[in-house]
Amino acid sequence: METQLQTRVHDLTRAESLDLLQLHAYVGRIGFVVDGQPLILPVNYLAYEDSIVFCTEPGTKLSAIAGGAPVVFEVDDSRALYHSGWSVVVKGTAQEITDENQLDELRRGPLHSWATRSSEHWVRLSIEEVTGRRIHAS
Amino acid sequence: METQLQTRVHDLTRAESLDLLQLHAYVGRIGFVVDGQPLILPVNYLAYEDSIVFCTEPGTKLSAIAGGAPVVFEVDDSRALYHSGWSVVVKGTAQEITDENQLDELRRGPLHSWATRSSEHWVRLSIEEVTGRRIHAS
Repeated sequence: METQLQTRVHDLTRAESLDLLQLHAYVGRIGFVVDGQPLILPVNYLAYEDSIVFCTEPGTKLSAIAGGAPVVFEVDDSRALYHSGWSVVVKGTAQEITDENQLDELRRGPLHSWATRSSEHWVRLSIEEVTGRRIHAS
Repeated sequence: METQLQTRVHDLTRAESLDLLQLHAYVGRIGFVVDGQPLILPVNYLAYEDSIVFCTEPGTKLSAIAGGAPVVFEVDDSRALYHSGWSVVVKGTAQEITDENQLDELRRGPLHSWATRSSEHWVRLSIEEVTGRRIHAS
């Protein structure tokens, strides 16, 4: 007896991936490397145009990613009952935002990290590559 | 006017983190490094005792992680309305499972990747370090 749900996987276009990134998730995960060890950090984020912006606490993790190091960013959503879902992965480089005008604008904007104060560091990830896939019942 | 929800962050114990890992999530994310580039891959997983098991398609990503390279694994869950949630992060090393008895047992078990066939490669991640945190309204 075959009890496993039959599913299909298909790749999303760049436009579909960006749409999911911008509209359908609140929490994403940053992947980066410190001394050869991969790390993942969940963050609240805002995606617009060709960037992802998030804020983070000061410390090692910020210094590791905000100097132009390669970074990966992932968002996904899934419905367990139907074994369906989607994921979007972005590759790019991260830079700390230090321009006071930009910081003022960001602090007045809609992004508030649930975990950090708005006075913390803000980081911008340039979207250099974006890919996505969707799994759904066939 | 202060419209931002006040939240508190606290660290979870090892037991609380393992409990969330084992009982409350279907999809986790593996972080690993290929040629200095961090990558994140969402997977269906099963956590038990001191291991996380997942299956994956053959290819670069498997060969990068299954040879004992350092790997990070993350699960989280959140409720946007309340700006609350939790995340658990595991560090360890990954090895492909090649023992036929173990593979038979796994193939008969409850874990079925939504995206891959059960004939694909199975990987075991040893849990060397587990940390977690929870954000909730204060």
